[in-house]
Amino acid sequence: MALFVQKYGGTSVGTAECIEAVAEKVCGFRNKGHDVVVVVSAMSGETNRLIDLANSITEEPAPREMDVLVSTGEQVTIALLAMALQKRGCEARSYTGGQVSILTDSMHTKARIRKIDEQGMRDDLDAGRVIVVAGFQGVDENGNITTLGRGGSDTTAVALAAALKADECQIYTDVDGVYTTDPRVVDSARRLERITFEEMMEMASLGSKVLQIRAVEFAGKYNVPLRVLSSFQEGEGTLITLEENIAMEQPVVSGIAFNRDEAKVTISGVPDTPGSALRILKPVSDANIDVDMIVQNVGEDNRTAFTFTVHRNDFNRAKDVLQRVSDELGAREVSGDTKIAKVSIVGVGMRSHVGVATTMFEALSAEGINIQMISTSEIKISVVINEKYLELAVRALHSAFELEKPAVEETM
Amino acid sequence: MALFVQKYGGTSVGTAECIEAVAEKVCGFRNKGHDVVVVVSAMSGETNRLIDLANSITEEPAPREMDVLVSTGEQVTIALLAMALQKRGCEARSYTGGQVSILTDSMHTKARIRKIDEQGMRDDLDAGRVIVVAGFQGVDENGNITTLGRGGSDTTAVALAAALKADECQIYTDVDGVYTTDPRVVDSARRLERITFEEMMEMASLGSKVLQIRAVEFAGKYNVPLRVLSSFQEGEGTLITLEENIAMEQPVVSGIAFNRDEAKVTISGVPDTPGSALRILKPVSDANIDVDMIVQNVGEDNRTAFTFTVHRNDFNRAKDVLQRVSDELGAREVSGDTKIAKVSIVGVGMRSHVGVATTMFEALSAEGINIQMISTSEIKISVVINEKYLELAVRALHSAFELEKPAVEETM
Repeated sequence: MALFVQKYGGTSVGTAECIEAVAEKVCGFRNKGHDVVVVVSAMSGETNRLIDLANSITEEPAPREMDVLVSTGEQVTIALLAMALQKRGCEARSYTGGQVSILTDSMHTKARIRKIDEQGMRDDLDAGRVIVVAGFQGVDENGNITTLGRGGSDTTAVALAAALKADECQIYTDVDGVYTTDPRVVDSARRLERITFEEMMEMASLGSKVLQIRAVEFAGKYNVPLRVLSSFQEGEGTLITLEENIAMEQPVVSGIAFNRDEAKVTISGVPDTPGSALRILKPVSDANIDVDMIVQNVGEDNRTAFTFTVHRNDFNRAKDVLQRVSDELGAREVSGDTKIAKVSIVGVGMRSHVGVATTMFEALSAEGINIQMISTSEIKISVVINEKYLELAVRALHSAFELEKPAVEETM
Repeated sequence: MALFVQKYGGTSVGTAECIEAVAEKVCGFRNKGHDVVVVVSAMSGETNRLIDLANSITEEPAPREMDVLVSTGEQVTIALLAMALQKRGCEARSYTGGQVSILTDSMHTKARIRKIDEQGMRDDLDAGRVIVVAGFQGVDENGNITTLGRGGSDTTAVALAAALKADECQIYTDVDGVYTTDPRVVDSARRLERITFEEMMEMASLGSKVLQIRAVEFAGKYNVPLRVLSSFQEGEGTLITLEENIAMEQPVVSGIAFNRDEAKVTISGVPDTPGSALRILKPVSDANIDVDMIVQNVGEDNRTAFTFTVHRNDFNRAKDVLQRVSDELGAREVSGDTKIAKVSIVGVGMRSHVGVATTMFEALSAEGINIQMISTSEIKISVVINEKYLELAVRALHSAFELEKPAVEETM
């Protein structure tokens, strides 16, 4: 007898048939005696339909009103799922974010959860009811409807699991778990049985779009065991948990993430004086451009070069900003390249193993792939390479770190 | 400077363009210095779309969940209208029924309003904001979402007007007012400038589907001046008000209503003993069949006949029930007719004028129209006739009571 918080995303509840299938699954858990709190997203396509409606009225809708509008998407799903559960003789009750007391700050369209009053949910669970909660939404202290930002249903699920001290927060999605890398790129990519919160965060932010990074962060902070599973097929999925729960045999590298959404921008021939990094990056940040990797090389003539990566959508704006900065600083040149890709190896095992970087660089070199930038953290090494070598690089690294082989602990 | 509560129905907010037009109209009132509270319905078609969704899951959705589902329809409209107002520089804020504190009982899908806390609205109005409220919905004391039943947006508007002591509650619809009769039947039908609550209730219940009868009842009870106007064309519409506000020159008859949704059922040869009316009508009422007109004739042999009218959809069920009753009572026969129509003349002026019935029966007789049933109230006389004479009867009565001529007070 456990308490599960389960989250079903937009494609899992995209049609009446899908909702019936989710109800069937939830009833299965109830019939085994488990308590279940279900968090659902809007039916796929619904949120976009609502946003289009708003845009047909104004290009700059007030965030408060956007929240009133888009929060209806999840409200439709909770009612339909509750009906589908009741039809199966499974007692259920639906709640909007406000009704279940998900109190947030007042930052409309990107609110953060402040507090959850779990007493009402406990009463329902004690009465044997399944609770169906609208994901992605809450209310502020004045009763205004807020939303947590797109994909925030994962965060709702984790927050409810934390508040209720659930045994597991299960995120049902259209993939059956977290893989060592994208199976569309590497045939032998393998589903991981377990991964740590930290690794998952690195994987998620690098483009393995299985889970919202905020949800993983939240789960890690409150130590909520998080499981990613498929809505459409049976399986154990991938359990995301604290490092201490991961067996000693954890492999050095857990997975290979990659990203081709970035572009790089270089400003070279910058007079090498204190504060130049700030004078270059502050205008970029002021222009609301997110910078990912930053590399500085010392050059000749007391001059230096900065290279950093930004989202490709921001490439032209970043170049314009830098050109202005370059003129002010008396730098030599601003250049850039959009045809790049970032490849990262991720693993908590790296911490205690030397030579991981060497293996990585050797594997790339053996394939004749030139490394343009390098950035490292405790559990991750990222390189920027020419975009055309992306698949080759991922396959070479997957094989170099023997990710196709199951780790010892995973055979237990 | 007045305070208006305005209600716009589904066709008035059916598309983004319609919503823009409503915003334009509301801004016009604001620019003249008036305070405005707007109540809106779901965009036309939306409520049916949601009901279809529910029916695709189950034929018997729980009323609580239906309310969660269909209340999203109005919530979408309030957000879009608030956006359209803000775009025009008109400060506005949207509220769901729950947010604006429309407290109802817990009768899901047909809840009744218990209390409205108007303080929050006063604050918004004082701050110069237009308030946009979702019609048709509220919350019960446990925070469950309720709906007032279909068409309940009119009731929301009247209730808000009563709570705020508004100067006028304006119902914008697709007709430009209340007519002496249906203009599709009588060319010379004339828009009424004023009508009393009582007359309006008789007109509405008899098929002039301009306003929800509950809303009119509510407006009468709290003496909220109610005006019906067109969303799509300029005009004064029709003001519905207390009798004392109607000038002395009020014509005897205000309008002619009619209805072809009814059927009549007769049980004859009933032994004329005390309690027979009850023994006949109770089983009908127990079967949830609404009865409209009831007529009893004394016959021969100490036997009597009852005739009453029911909705045509209930005709067969009513006959079945009566056949059972007939067997029990030892009555002679059960018969019925669906090809009937009810025509009524309505007017508070009838109270003080004799001979109204005579004029009515003369006019019908002159056209050779046989009267099958008669029923009277203080401000209404209804007759049942053969359906095929309906248009002829309405035109004859409209002319007999000179309804095509403007009343004196209406020329002021």
